[in-house]
Amino acid sequence: MANDKTVSSVGEFGLIEHCFKNLGRSDIPGVGRGIGDDAAVLFVPRTQDLLATSDTLVEGVHFTRDADPRQLGWKALCVNLSDIAAMGGEPRWYLLSISLPPTTPLAWVEQLALGLAAAGERYRVALVGGNTTATTGPIVLTISLFGVVGNGRPILRSGAEEGNRIFLSGTLGDSVLGLRRLTGVDRGACEKGMVDFLLDRHVRPMPRTELGMALVDAAVARSAVDVSDGLLADLGHVCAASGVGADIHLEKMPLSLAARQWLGDGDGDRWRVLLTGGEDYELLFTISPGALDQIPAIAEKVGVPLTEIGVITREKGVRVWNSGKPLVLSDAGFKHF
Amino acid sequence: MANDKTVSSVGEFGLIEHCFKNLGRSDIPGVGRGIGDDAAVLFVPRTQDLLATSDTLVEGVHFTRDADPRQLGWKALCVNLSDIAAMGGEPRWYLLSISLPPTTPLAWVEQLALGLAAAGERYRVALVGGNTTATTGPIVLTISLFGVVGNGRPILRSGAEEGNRIFLSGTLGDSVLGLRRLTGVDRGACEKGMVDFLLDRHVRPMPRTELGMALVDAAVARSAVDVSDGLLADLGHVCAASGVGADIHLEKMPLSLAARQWLGDGDGDRWRVLLTGGEDYELLFTISPGALDQIPAIAEKVGVPLTEIGVITREKGVRVWNSGKPLVLSDAGFKHF
Repeated sequence: MANDKTVSSVGEFGLIEHCFKNLGRSDIPGVGRGIGDDAAVLFVPRTQDLLATSDTLVEGVHFTRDADPRQLGWKALCVNLSDIAAMGGEPRWYLLSISLPPTTPLAWVEQLALGLAAAGERYRVALVGGNTTATTGPIVLTISLFGVVGNGRPILRSGAEEGNRIFLSGTLGDSVLGLRRLTGVDRGACEKGMVDFLLDRHVRPMPRTELGMALVDAAVARSAVDVSDGLLADLGHVCAASGVGADIHLEKMPLSLAARQWLGDGDGDRWRVLLTGGEDYELLFTISPGALDQIPAIAEKVGVPLTEIGVITREKGVRVWNSGKPLVLSDAGFKHF
Repeated sequence: MANDKTVSSVGEFGLIEHCFKNLGRSDIPGVGRGIGDDAAVLFVPRTQDLLATSDTLVEGVHFTRDADPRQLGWKALCVNLSDIAAMGGEPRWYLLSISLPPTTPLAWVEQLALGLAAAGERYRVALVGGNTTATTGPIVLTISLFGVVGNGRPILRSGAEEGNRIFLSGTLGDSVLGLRRLTGVDRGACEKGMVDFLLDRHVRPMPRTELGMALVDAAVARSAVDVSDGLLADLGHVCAASGVGADIHLEKMPLSLAARQWLGDGDGDRWRVLLTGGEDYELLFTISPGALDQIPAIAEKVGVPLTEIGVITREKGVRVWNSGKPLVLSDAGFKHF
């Protein structure tokens, strides 16, 4: 279609037909009926539990109008994939609800759909329904994603026990450093390769789907959460749900070369940025000490570093240690309002 | 809490705790884990298929800021319940995604939650997760609703066959007449009881959940759709999906006393309003003539009138007959953009 078209010129059904219909992949199991009826018809194998989550991205809050819509499509799906990964599930199907100003260029929606298609291809999930509406305000995008996991096998936030070792996948804080570059908070000289790396980590998160599934297969994780609100906030969620506390150690934190360079000699304020920045979309999980020897094989299998960063304690609250000295932080985590 | 509080003063977690947590009913089957983890854990019985749908309401498009938030909560859930009803499913669980300006009064959200609670109670569905975000624009509310139905038993839009009789539940067009009163399009003198009835039909739809389930139990419906975009548009969806056409007859249309009074001697323009107004949330379904004798018992069982309004034809397109003469309509159905 011509590039000067808007969503109002093709209408709701044109938009679905033109942009979204081919996101309903035919190679994903369990789709009895996808896009085009009053509801999707889905098959959950009798050996599996269903997982369901939803996340919303709002223009002006989570992205700007000049953000690359293809990256936005990728990210919108991936923030949901990360939630399913944190439960140890295999992602399957999603619903897309999108509110668009009638003047939105059709090309913008086409690019968004390409980003969704790329993430759907990489993580093997199919669009099975949803809805499009007009809005007088910012673009709002809600995805509801469904996954499956063996009966009784989901990894909950509430399973952490005293003595559990705390692990973090990948590296910490790259995403918030990418965001700070993007918004101009950080302006200092920095190698271009490093900047690109950080920006990529912010706009193109890689949910740890294979890791979550491997943790379930090995039956090692006692609890898990994805790091979306910030390490401290999300570890806090696990501790609150499990009725425990945690000690974590900064010298153990897995950092990328770029983050380590940015951190420099590591004053408390800079650590605070990394610990509370959020949108890492890494997995934080706890295991009993007896399972420690299984971790290297899992890390190798899924190709993601897994780093022990601390221990679950009976004493409540999360304590951060910097080479044996307590680090005091006033505030933790992304505020949604 | 005090009534002058806003959502930003309680924050995301306060909002969930205060307004939404008790929507996670404990009497709904299949909830392994509801609100409070990365994803909900749900159990779908092995004898049943899963149904999933989502619908969005946008302030300024689907409701105004001065709309009663309690009625809005009811309606937001019910428009989704209507989709599950159209598939013949039993509704179970839902996710709520809501984007709110930080200045939204907490009392508004409390009232919304009361409306959701009332519909959840009436139709026996539980909130199992979702998300809240800030927005700089209008309030946007997306619900994703899940239901279950016997394996292979969902009623699709695509099953209509030549010779099928077309049935409509309840009465036609009351909702759009209520909307016209609400927005001042219709101002003429009208008995107060009638006005109240029409307004109620608009703001408090009653999804035909029991009817959908009864149609599945009796295995009579060949196709079904809920009337949300307008009778002509939704019948058009069934015909397009099934590769057939339809003849419908105005003299057979089930009308409320209020609609009949408004219609008067029934010119084409007034019929057009009733046929295209939408938001009836009645079920339109087709059955083979051999199943006709089962309809009265179903209507009696669920306490909803079921009226034969026409027949499915091999010839494509929807033709409307007014006492044997064709009614020509230029346009059909609610445009989303």
